[in-house]
Amino acid sequence: MQAVVIAIGDELLAGKTVNNNAAYLSARLALLGIPVRRQLVVGDREDDIVAAVVEARGLAPFAVATGGLGPTNDDLTLGVISRWLKRELVLHPATLKHIEEMFARRGVSMPAVNVGQAQVPAGARVLRNPLGTAPGIIVEEEGWTLALLPGVPAEMEYLFDHGVAPYLEEKGYVGERVYERVLRCVGLPESAVAERIGAFPLPPGVHLAYLPHAGEVNLRLWGSAPNEGTFRERARPLVESVKGALGIHVYGEGDEVIEEVVGGILSTRGETVAVAESCTAGLLAGRITNVSGSSAWFRGGVVAYANDVKEALLGVAAETLAAYGAVSEETAREMAAGVRSRLGADYALGVTGIAGPTGGTAEKPVGTVCFGFASAGEITSEKAVFNGDRAFVRHRAVLYALDLLRRRLLRKERRK
Amino acid sequence: MQAVVIAIGDELLAGKTVNNNAAYLSARLALLGIPVRRQLVVGDREDDIVAAVVEARGLAPFAVATGGLGPTNDDLTLGVISRWLKRELVLHPATLKHIEEMFARRGVSMPAVNVGQAQVPAGARVLRNPLGTAPGIIVEEEGWTLALLPGVPAEMEYLFDHGVAPYLEEKGYVGERVYERVLRCVGLPESAVAERIGAFPLPPGVHLAYLPHAGEVNLRLWGSAPNEGTFRERARPLVESVKGALGIHVYGEGDEVIEEVVGGILSTRGETVAVAESCTAGLLAGRITNVSGSSAWFRGGVVAYANDVKEALLGVAAETLAAYGAVSEETAREMAAGVRSRLGADYALGVTGIAGPTGGTAEKPVGTVCFGFASAGEITSEKAVFNGDRAFVRHRAVLYALDLLRRRLLRKERRK
Repeated sequence: MQAVVIAIGDELLAGKTVNNNAAYLSARLALLGIPVRRQLVVGDREDDIVAAVVEARGLAPFAVATGGLGPTNDDLTLGVISRWLKRELVLHPATLKHIEEMFARRGVSMPAVNVGQAQVPAGARVLRNPLGTAPGIIVEEEGWTLALLPGVPAEMEYLFDHGVAPYLEEKGYVGERVYERVLRCVGLPESAVAERIGAFPLPPGVHLAYLPHAGEVNLRLWGSAPNEGTFRERARPLVESVKGALGIHVYGEGDEVIEEVVGGILSTRGETVAVAESCTAGLLAGRITNVSGSSAWFRGGVVAYANDVKEALLGVAAETLAAYGAVSEETAREMAAGVRSRLGADYALGVTGIAGPTGGTAEKPVGTVCFGFASAGEITSEKAVFNGDRAFVRHRAVLYALDLLRRRLLRKERRK
Repeated sequence: MQAVVIAIGDELLAGKTVNNNAAYLSARLALLGIPVRRQLVVGDREDDIVAAVVEARGLAPFAVATGGLGPTNDDLTLGVISRWLKRELVLHPATLKHIEEMFARRGVSMPAVNVGQAQVPAGARVLRNPLGTAPGIIVEEEGWTLALLPGVPAEMEYLFDHGVAPYLEEKGYVGERVYERVLRCVGLPESAVAERIGAFPLPPGVHLAYLPHAGEVNLRLWGSAPNEGTFRERARPLVESVKGALGIHVYGEGDEVIEEVVGGILSTRGETVAVAESCTAGLLAGRITNVSGSSAWFRGGVVAYANDVKEALLGVAAETLAAYGAVSEETAREMAAGVRSRLGADYALGVTGIAGPTGGTAEKPVGTVCFGFASAGEITSEKAVFNGDRAFVRHRAVLYALDLLRRRLLRKERRK
């Protein structure tokens, strides 16, 4: 069993609205073991709507369409589908009553145009919509099924989950459900991840997708299975091989983000961190404090954008700035050491770089970022060059700094 | 001239990725006067990719497809399209050189799989991608044109704007353009904006859309016109009425963001600002430094997450913290005054609040944020309560702080 997802609406084709509905419906169908074969978006025009349902019918035994069920005259879906199916539109009394009650509750008399929303194709199954006036509708035609849902996301989601999904279960259309495991990797480009693991055989019933995103690569292992335990058992050999091949680059699983991983290590140990930032200028502290409860392990930071602030608030030596420049591993180390002692943290990071678009030189091109790390026992530094615009360089520098901290913490762990 | 937008990728069909690319491309094409007739999403399978391009070719003389240009073996687009067009894949030396250079700059040797990204269908136009390794590709075939772009949004956007759009202009494919003017408002909810301007008549050929987004409301005036001057002339009466009705709440136009507006005022005056942050914890400094050249007017900041850091680095009095609490207008004022004097800035902001989800009380619920402002002549404070999750409260607090600074700067301007 496969499905097609159709979205109807000029505002989607104009790029004014992002098609979140298609993503929602596709994800829900995937969980029901009904993979989506194609997503289509067409405008509010009869011939295009008909073309979409004809195409959907040729591709899969089930389709769900959203949009065009409102009360105004640019909402064509019901009329078009009825004509195409050669079925009359008939009044659905329970729906009319529901619409009248919704207006009555608001103390407003029902506009005449809303009566049209209680007209449904003859023989349709009607799904009550407690969140709005347009019902969901399911029509069956010679072994093919089409569900029509409103385009308002909350109504669409409710009607799919409470009307369409139970219908698909009742009819026995659901397949084996899909389960997944996501391994989150940092510090390797997608191609390097692929070189290390691309030749690994996939266990039967397990698929692998690479999801690269701005310095991270998520590896999604997924497949349908009778239950989660079976899927995990199937995926285990691959998960172990991947973890072995990527080593420390795998920082977490599922929805876990790197700042949570770092925070988890620090709070377990009862230790703290502080940060000194130049080019990232607060973004590193801001990301750390995305984690609720980070006050337990994050002391604070200094945004030292101007050189004299690096001297005054962090104690970076004027000689260091003069000899090596603000963007240097030497300065990064002194920033880390300075913020560590001033804020009384166990660990500290210093970040200084050239985010661009201006300020680059032949020796230090735009994208050059230096990182300092300070702990009770050591002060070290690293340097990286990121290719991209200002926002990208800053984002990558934040990620690199968090990963540097993570690596140092884990190294210390291993030494114990 | 119409267009079809195709997105290729299993992750889209699985609902793991929202098709933002289709919205971006559709909006850009609309501005070029090329309406999108259909959006299609297919998976990483040869027959489905071919079916999509065949369908697109039947619908419109131009199509743009995104995705499947990466280096791994689930990236099929180039091979499939070449086979379908019956054209050989040939090495594009300039692209290979570019890819090699990207790796060299990072100090990494190029994995062998990346060579494949320099193979393009014979006769294709190649669009250089400074942000990544996959080039954009345009192929023409008997009056039909297909552009292939990577799925990474930043790369796709760059290549469309700098490669595909100029190509469409060069070929004379653009229609009567859609022009727009966007007025950016802050400090009023959408309903309040609508109450003030909703009854204004629209000039002929001018449409108006409200685009509310997390504390800001963008008002988009748009319409097709033979040239920009004509559109601006048509829109002018409405622009003037709106500006009059919304007053200081209109902070900018077009793509201008509030941190740029603030930076523009400060750099014109040769003045500087510094920030002290608790709940926003670097996000305000990070947003200010999104502006390239902000080092001319931004001194730096202190992220004082822990109370003793507020005392040590900002000079907030222990008595103030004890009497009024860390989240209080008194503390916010002392934070602002402290960071102003320590960093030697003309103006300073202090932000302290309860981002949640925990930490709220009956008197100070989650979402309470206090703002301090310090200049040579005054130290003032304001308080606001934002309803939403942790990320939303922090975002709104950053916006409020920037707007507070803007309002103070403009008031001083008017006094002169």
